[in-house]
Amino acid sequence: MDFMTVIGLVGALALLVWAILLGAPLSLFYDMPSVVMVGGGTAFVTMMSYRPSDIKALAKIGLRAILFKLPTPQQEIERIIVYANLARKEGLLALEAKLQEVDDKFFAKGIQLVIDGFSADTVRDIMDLEHSFQQQRHAQGKKMMETIATFAPAFGMIGTLVGLVQMLANMSDPSSIGAGMAVALLTTFYGAVIANVIALPLAAKLDLRAKEEALLRNLMVEGIVAIQSGEKPQLIKEKLKGFLPPSAREGVAA
Amino acid sequence: MDFMTVIGLVGALALLVWAILLGAPLSLFYDMPSVVMVGGGTAFVTMMSYRPSDIKALAKIGLRAILFKLPTPQQEIERIIVYANLARKEGLLALEAKLQEVDDKFFAKGIQLVIDGFSADTVRDIMDLEHSFQQQRHAQGKKMMETIATFAPAFGMIGTLVGLVQMLANMSDPSSIGAGMAVALLTTFYGAVIANVIALPLAAKLDLRAKEEALLRNLMVEGIVAIQSGEKPQLIKEKLKGFLPPSAREGVAA
Amino acid sequence: MDFMTVIGLVGALALLVWAILLGAPLSLFYDMPSVVMVGGGTAFVTMMSYRPSDIKALAKIGLRAILFKLPTPQQEIERIIVYANLARKEGLLALEAKLQEVDDKFFAKGIQLVIDGFSADTVRDIMDLEHSFQQQRHAQGKKMMETIATFAPAFGMIGTLVGLVQMLANMSDPSSIGAGMAVALLTTFYGAVIANVIALPLAAKLDLRAKEEALLRNLMVEGIVAIQSGEKPQLIKEKLKGFLPPSAREGVAA
Amino acid sequence: MDFMTVIGLVGALALLVWAILLGAPLSLFYDMPSVVMVGGGTAFVTMMSYRPSDIKALAKIGLRAILFKLPTPQQEIERIIVYANLARKEGLLALEAKLQEVDDKFFAKGIQLVIDGFSADTVRDIMDLEHSFQQQRHAQGKKMMETIATFAPAFGMIGTLVGLVQMLANMSDPSSIGAGMAVALLTTFYGAVIANVIALPLAAKLDLRAKEEALLRNLMVEGIVAIQSGEKPQLIKEKLKGFLPPSAREGVAA
Amino acid sequence: MDFMTVIGLVGALALLVWAILLGAPLSLFYDMPSVVMVGGGTAFVTMMSYRPSDIKALAKIGLRAILFKLPTPQQEIERIIVYANLARKEGLLALEAKLQEVDDKFFAKGIQLVIDGFSADTVRDIMDLEHSFQQQRHAQGKKMMETIATFAPAFGMIGTLVGLVQMLANMSDPSSIGAGMAVALLTTFYGAVIANVIALPLAAKLDLRAKEEALLRNLMVEGIVAIQSGEKPQLIKEKLKGFLPPSAREGVAA
Repeated sequence: MDFMTVIGLVGALALLVWAILLGAPLSLFYDMPSVVMVGGGTAFVTMMSYRPSDIKALAKIGLRAILFKLPTPQQEIERIIVYANLARKEGLLALEAKLQEVDDKFFAKGIQLVIDGFSADTVRDIMDLEHSFQQQRHAQGKKMMETIATFAPAFGMIGTLVGLVQMLANMSDPSSIGAGMAVALLTTFYGAVIANVIALPLAAKLDLRAKEEALLRNLMVEGIVAIQSGEKPQLIKEKLKGFLPPSAREGVAA
Repeated sequence: MDFMTVIGLVGALALLVWAILLGAPLSLFYDMPSVVMVGGGTAFVTMMSYRPSDIKALAKIGLRAILFKLPTPQQEIERIIVYANLARKEGLLALEAKLQEVDDKFFAKGIQLVIDGFSADTVRDIMDLEHSFQQQRHAQGKKMMETIATFAPAFGMIGTLVGLVQMLANMSDPSSIGAGMAVALLTTFYGAVIANVIALPLAAKLDLRAKEEALLRNLMVEGIVAIQSGEKPQLIKEKLKGFLPPSAREGVAA
Repeated sequence: MDFMTVIGLVGALALLVWAILLGAPLSLFYDMPSVVMVGGGTAFVTMMSYRPSDIKALAKIGLRAILFKLPTPQQEIERIIVYANLARKEGLLALEAKLQEVDDKFFAKGIQLVIDGFSADTVRDIMDLEHSFQQQRHAQGKKMMETIATFAPAFGMIGTLVGLVQMLANMSDPSSIGAGMAVALLTTFYGAVIANVIALPLAAKLDLRAKEEALLRNLMVEGIVAIQSGEKPQLIKEKLKGFLPPSAREGVAA
Repeated sequence: MDFMTVIGLVGALALLVWAILLGAPLSLFYDMPSVVMVGGGTAFVTMMSYRPSDIKALAKIGLRAILFKLPTPQQEIERIIVYANLARKEGLLALEAKLQEVDDKFFAKGIQLVIDGFSADTVRDIMDLEHSFQQQRHAQGKKMMETIATFAPAFGMIGTLVGLVQMLANMSDPSSIGAGMAVALLTTFYGAVIANVIALPLAAKLDLRAKEEALLRNLMVEGIVAIQSGEKPQLIKEKLKGFLPPSAREGVAA
Repeated sequence: MDFMTVIGLVGALALLVWAILLGAPLSLFYDMPSVVMVGGGTAFVTMMSYRPSDIKALAKIGLRAILFKLPTPQQEIERIIVYANLARKEGLLALEAKLQEVDDKFFAKGIQLVIDGFSADTVRDIMDLEHSFQQQRHAQGKKMMETIATFAPAFGMIGTLVGLVQMLANMSDPSSIGAGMAVALLTTFYGAVIANVIALPLAAKLDLRAKEEALLRNLMVEGIVAIQSGEKPQLIKEKLKGFLPPSAREGVAA
């Protein structure tokens, strides 16, 4: 699980609740119609802007980015070395049994292609294509989060305008002005929270995740092609370490 | 029909109406001069910014993007395979009869070029050129929607300024201040709704549609060129599947 | 004349006047010092940002873009065909007499170069260079309009701040507050109108005009080079039609 | 001197003073702490953002851009022709005496390199490098002006917030509210004036100046290399005219 | 130490304190919940947007950029010349002893590679790779500062909305409205200060620092490769001076 995202989200929301409770009951900040207005409005126009498949993919990719941690490049290098050792000692076919344990479909597919005897170039082409589709999904997810970060404050403003017009048109009772205005501002508040506490941080995290995954995928492709060509595990390790920043290289067990 | 766009639009507008009705009659939010001001002003300056032909094209392309659904790449691949089978069994000329049924002008033109005996390169060049004009139209449509999303809130603000100045210059009757201000805010409200509920989502949808169409067109060109060169239908199918993301490949009937 | 620009501008301004007259005399929205402030301020800082020659060029190019319509590509193709026919029947020198009738200096210069016997490459180089200077002027014009669209609202805000400070510092007579505030808002109003009704639409139009002219110029260069090489008029026409979108090709007389 | 910049700046400031004096004494708009706040704050954070050398360079380059006019390309061409004539008649060494009169260090350095007998390629390389450093300085100057245009309004807003909080916390005397608010707004006013009347126009002017200088420098390099290779002055002139837009070419004396 | 950054920061903050003290006690501008809200909220969402390793790296790189000054390119050239002289007189191995004194790991690594006898191309490749990781860290640091500059004002606005809603919902005591509003504005004030006095200037400084370091690193790589190839120190110096702007070249001792 990506604890940073969860801790950050929970922390920011807890902070908000705490700040609210300092001065008033929480119920003052809950107005069902305002929630429906901002949440629903943002959902509807995001729906207009994308396709059902995009939205399904976002849910899936977004959850995965938050719930599951990627292996570190160091772990990945070590896994590749294990496979390289096996392949050199017992031949490429021996990898097949070991494939059962692999969760990562991308890695499994690459090793399978090697077992099936495809050429290095073909392996590389197929895996790069696969990778580019994953990257597109991440980019689309990031764009969708940014769309939400645009529309939520817009609907917040629209809701506040609705509230203001209603309040202004009906000022016979001056004592109710404050309360009316307070409710009108809630939609702006919701819009700002959705954009800044949820959508924008998740967009940034998806972007980072895409870059991390790209690094891992490139490392895997190089590693798998090297396994196929029967290079020495020690040499493969040195090569793959080039993908890491200098400070991280020592983390790879010699 | 692209139901997502229609449902999203209708849903967002219904939400707005519901939010308004919670607190006041709908008539409070309808002010004919304000509608004319924002709608007309946006229309006039959009007219200044483009040419009549651009505006006609937008109407056409915008409607098509909303009303008609594109075939999925899977369906398109299957259609191409049907033509490829026919061509291999009964020759290229046999395609001519089948062309009557085809709605898609782009596909029909490509097949016609093949029947007429043009070389693969010529077919590819002509169809790529045709395709680039379509893409330009989509890009222009998207830009025009973004222009509207800029000008509508601007006219909303101009309208509110007009209302404010009129209200402020005439404050002898304090009881009318609220009502005057309420009307003044309506143009800002209209501008925000036009931009965020109509123009921006449609701009995003046109962009997505252009990308979907580009994928389909590229797939068609590859398929038609493959038909011409008499490749085996099974091989053509494998080739065209490369255009699909992995998860979608299984949707293509073997 | 580019009627769209003129109709759009007149229409948008008429709309504004109408909206104003609905609630107050027009004089309420006219305050000479505010006009001088926003118009003069914008003019002075635009002067600071550019050179006298840029400003002269903008006036010339802006007026031409609004007052004169470009020939359509179809008309241009037909003119080239007339010249191509003449050249094939009576030789290149026969073009000289016909050049008298030509308004378009760019076209005239190209034909003259052909008559003077320059090589195709030289003709192309000279005309492309000429064309690039025209494009630069258009781009500069567009940028200057965008500069105005930035500075006019800024001076509007500065003017409103001046008015607000004066009003706030002198609130002994509460009844004059509204009027003072109304006048203070006028500069913001002027700034928004200059930016959104004049500068931004003209910037968009100049951009479009530049693209239209680029298409025409490229078409001319191809046509003139083809005339020089003595190609058949029918062939030249087919070639030049490639510059048009499919839907416009039928407009060219066979 | 670049009169446009000076006239524009003086004009815009005079306009402001005039607009202020129409309604109140100038002293109403002068508040020493507010001036220190916006001016000093902007200066401090700009200092944080850059290095002392950048700031010194900006002062130098900014002043030069305003105080000294560049020669026109026409004048530059004529100067090069004079040198070309001299070199052809009396040899390259005769240029040395004439170099005493040259103010422009860039030109002088180029001619010196020619006299010293360096090859055309070396002359070109050295001068292009020199030129790229000048362009970097201009780009840095422009960026610094844009930084100021960002920070000045930000400090204006911070100052206004400080004033508002102080005023709101102390509303026992209602009659002083207006005056407090007026003072609070002054920092926003100063920030907007610094950004829009000084920083942004100067950024635009520096950008234009950089482009003008780039044109002149390229023209000089071509001219000096041509002098070295002993080309005919008439030919050099024709070549260099290619750097000018068509309308400016007639300004060069035949 | 980078005094400019420290002086700028201290100066800007001192100015703020001074401006505040002119009108009220400092305590008026200190509200613990508001500080926690803006500071904590920004920290939490920045945490969501990045990874723990990024944040650790930023702290390290940010501090280094402020606390330690880079050597000037002139000093760096002189150091390289010392090494070049030594290498020519006593051979490459003599450099090893001198390496003890070197603080700069990058320089030390390069010299070590030369001593170890790697080829010029290998040295260059390894050092360029090392350098690209450093640049990435700087770019990431800059981006993180810009993220903070986005989120701090957003949380300021959210905090102000919370305060406004609480104040508006409870207006029974008119005399407390001013004070409530004053407190509500504090979060906006904090957000603006964090963004404009801390985050944006540091982002600019990190960017500049990255460029300075890139120049130094490129200079070092060229110098080290030249040492390896045994070029004359005088020649190396002339070559490396090409990295400096003309005005700085005289600063290098002949």
